[in-house]
Amino acid sequence: MDSYLEIVERTLDEVLPKGRPEKLSEAMRYAVGAGGKRIRPLICLAAAEAVGGRAEDARYPAAAIELLHNYTLVHDDLPAMDNDTERRGKPSVWAKFGEADAILAGDALQALAFGVAAKARRNAGAIVRTLGEKGVGVVAGQAEDIGSDKDIPYIYEHKTADLFVAAAKMGGLAGGGSEDDIAALEAFALNLGLAFQYEDDLLDGDYTYSREETEQLAQETTRRAVEALARLKGDTAFLRELANRLLGRRV
Amino acid sequence: MDSYLEIVERTLDEVLPKGRPEKLSEAMRYAVGAGGKRIRPLICLAAAEAVGGRAEDARYPAAAIELLHNYTLVHDDLPAMDNDTERRGKPSVWAKFGEADAILAGDALQALAFGVAAKARRNAGAIVRTLGEKGVGVVAGQAEDIGSDKDIPYIYEHKTADLFVAAAKMGGLAGGGSEDDIAALEAFALNLGLAFQYEDDLLDGDYTYSREETEQLAQETTRRAVEALARLKGDTAFLRELANRLLGRRV
Repeated sequence: MDSYLEIVERTLDEVLPKGRPEKLSEAMRYAVGAGGKRIRPLICLAAAEAVGGRAEDARYPAAAIELLHNYTLVHDDLPAMDNDTERRGKPSVWAKFGEADAILAGDALQALAFGVAAKARRNAGAIVRTLGEKGVGVVAGQAEDIGSDKDIPYIYEHKTADLFVAAAKMGGLAGGGSEDDIAALEAFALNLGLAFQYEDDLLDGDYTYSREETEQLAQETTRRAVEALARLKGDTAFLRELANRLLGRRV
Repeated sequence: MDSYLEIVERTLDEVLPKGRPEKLSEAMRYAVGAGGKRIRPLICLAAAEAVGGRAEDARYPAAAIELLHNYTLVHDDLPAMDNDTERRGKPSVWAKFGEADAILAGDALQALAFGVAAKARRNAGAIVRTLGEKGVGVVAGQAEDIGSDKDIPYIYEHKTADLFVAAAKMGGLAGGGSEDDIAALEAFALNLGLAFQYEDDLLDGDYTYSREETEQLAQETTRRAVEALARLKGDTAFLRELANRLLGRRV
């Protein structure tokens, strides 16, 4: 875990801009550096090892998914969206840098994410197509969520799970996984993403379903996520522990 | 030109979403369909032929650059940015669909652009890296433009010319051009982009330099753009005519 985190932080620092325009670079670094848990990039690196590859092979896709995730947070916080002035206990990007620079910082983070994903040595085309598909999906999930006629399963799958799926799939592709490996990783990550969302509902006390149903759904999807890992030939200990720990977030 | 346009419109229609969330799909199609001249995708297709390839080989990168260009317009029009309620004689995306959906439509168009660029059969990795670099560049140009201490040459190069350069370079890569070909296309497109900006200043009567200096700069950069084409072995008639026509936009 520590060595995974070192890879993620080193690669993010390598790819984030330092130069002009200074305010834009500063806003981009602030958005990405603000104490995230790096769950998605950790999944990406671990997915490469789960298919028998090396974590280092997935470092650019891992940085890419974190950049993309953080741009969505920057834009979600905007006044026209959730109007949040805080994120992770600090001023949100727009509250600190202004709305215009927050829009631009988010836009630049997304472009950077794709450019970085394309640096993967193996399967760069498939990796970018995956990020493109899920990058549209996560926005579609958010659009559905702010719409009038909400389809909850659609929102959970796309707003939350899509970036977990992208992380796992890109890591598997970067690690040279087979089609079966990639399918197992997708099943793992979809269920993990859903479990993550149910746990969020439980943490917030904000139930779409009843508390009991939500607990059952969280356990069921976690079980399915762990089961999918059994289909992989590489080291899946980290991913299994991550799934079980997410289930315990409440405690 | 007509066959180029047919390729661009057909590919855009193929890749733009039709399904749910309907408002998002509608906003994305509205943003891209609103009567653009398609200059950047035409450059992309013509660049593939200029290196001896086929225009069809560059259809996904061509669609990608138009999607990316249009997302920048959607976000530039937002109230927190230029606050424009009209674009091409019609309501801007935020004026028609609301701010939140305009932010999301722009975000989804950018993700789609990269996913589509990665569908290129040849050099997909290099094509996406080019789009990533220039996609960050165009945002940096805009950030400099809304900043307090403006560097005009920096703004012209990045806000305007970067997407011309991306278009030409991606087309050359998709068409299988050599390193020398790509360098010639970059020189062409950088100068064409600068000429385009000087012509814009002349059309708007909004001079950074004097009117005479601006005219001279427009002619000088157009001449350099056309000269760069001589280094290419394929058919460059379309690109040469485009450069000369852009110079004549005033008349």
